[in-house]
Amino acid sequence: MTERFITFEGPEGAGKTTIINKLQQELENRSIPAIFTREPGGIEISEKIRSIILDKEHTTMDGRTEALLYAAARRQHLVEKVIPSLKEGKYVICDRFIDSSLAYQGYAREIGLEDIFSINSFAVDGYMPDTTFYLDLDVEAGLERINQNKDREVNRLDLETLSFHRKVREGYLILQEKFPERIIKIDANRTVSEVFKDVLYHLQRKYKL
Amino acid sequence: MTERFITFEGPEGAGKTTIINKLQQELENRSIPAIFTREPGGIEISEKIRSIILDKEHTTMDGRTEALLYAAARRQHLVEKVIPSLKEGKYVICDRFIDSSLAYQGYAREIGLEDIFSINSFAVDGYMPDTTFYLDLDVEAGLERINQNKDREVNRLDLETLSFHRKVREGYLILQEKFPERIIKIDANRTVSEVFKDVLYHLQRKYKL
Repeated sequence: MTERFITFEGPEGAGKTTIINKLQQELENRSIPAIFTREPGGIEISEKIRSIILDKEHTTMDGRTEALLYAAARRQHLVEKVIPSLKEGKYVICDRFIDSSLAYQGYAREIGLEDIFSINSFAVDGYMPDTTFYLDLDVEAGLERINQNKDREVNRLDLETLSFHRKVREGYLILQEKFPERIIKIDANRTVSEVFKDVLYHLQRKYKL
Repeated sequence: MTERFITFEGPEGAGKTTIINKLQQELENRSIPAIFTREPGGIEISEKIRSIILDKEHTTMDGRTEALLYAAARRQHLVEKVIPSLKEGKYVICDRFIDSSLAYQGYAREIGLEDIFSINSFAVDGYMPDTTFYLDLDVEAGLERINQNKDREVNRLDLETLSFHRKVREGYLILQEKFPERIIKIDANRTVSEVFKDVLYHLQRKYKL
């Protein structure tokens, strides 16, 4: 049942939103039933949890507290939105999921990949994505793209250092080596149309779309 | 360092608050440095998490989401309040801790003791209580005591059925058998002074207070 569960991962600025929007248009054009979501996804409980995580006033927040809150928001979004759509036979395309926690909290914050995997396994309870696109991008290029986007509100996570963002990338690359069957690495240092072409190629090959 | 970390557990109505208040008076009289706390314990982040859990509007909250939120609130309270006090050499007496999650979520809600232990082990990261007093009480007697207390606000957890409260008790009894070195079972179907005498006896024996 998780066959149609597809996630997108990568650093800020990798172009996930742009690619996902193009994919949404593509699936709509082909009348393929799909929902597009991202945590907290309008789920009231998850939204409230997320607002605690992102509150810039919460400077005392411990890394493990944050990791548990992400897992809690993930669980509720999964139960209220992802699982019902998968049960209706729809494709579910989710912008960030378990690998974000693994790369950010597990690896970059050094809480440990295994520990973060353990609490997130509890949260997803078997609902692992079937395919994950990891949009890989040079760290400096990613940050430059973010800074050019003036409409975007700065949140607590953006205030991290460059070395943190480097570790996030390292984390993703480790995950890709660890789960090569699930995670497809896409070179995002290219034009949108080149990146999108790659994504479509893999989806067509795997799902005969 | 967790030697001076003492928790109280038991169902609603078992008299935890009364016994803890007497213990606080006793330690003050003897000038023994101690703090008395309970989650969320005035810790802003934990208070906000707790208010999400207890909101009666959140009828769609999944059991695993709830368990992760309790673990998150526990983590932050531990980091901001319990650990600093233990490091100062104080006794820390906490009203409810990890065993509440094990008995309520793990056993009574049937999420599984092992899974709940796993996410809470992540949260406490080695800071397990040294001594836990489990105030054991007949379920009907406990509920009767709660209903007589008109000052108490009804929250979402009070609305559970009698059979749920029975399972909570079963859960605690299983935990006590599992951790006999740590958990001391106290018969709370007695007068306050009898119960308190028992608690003091064990504390004096163990800590030479």
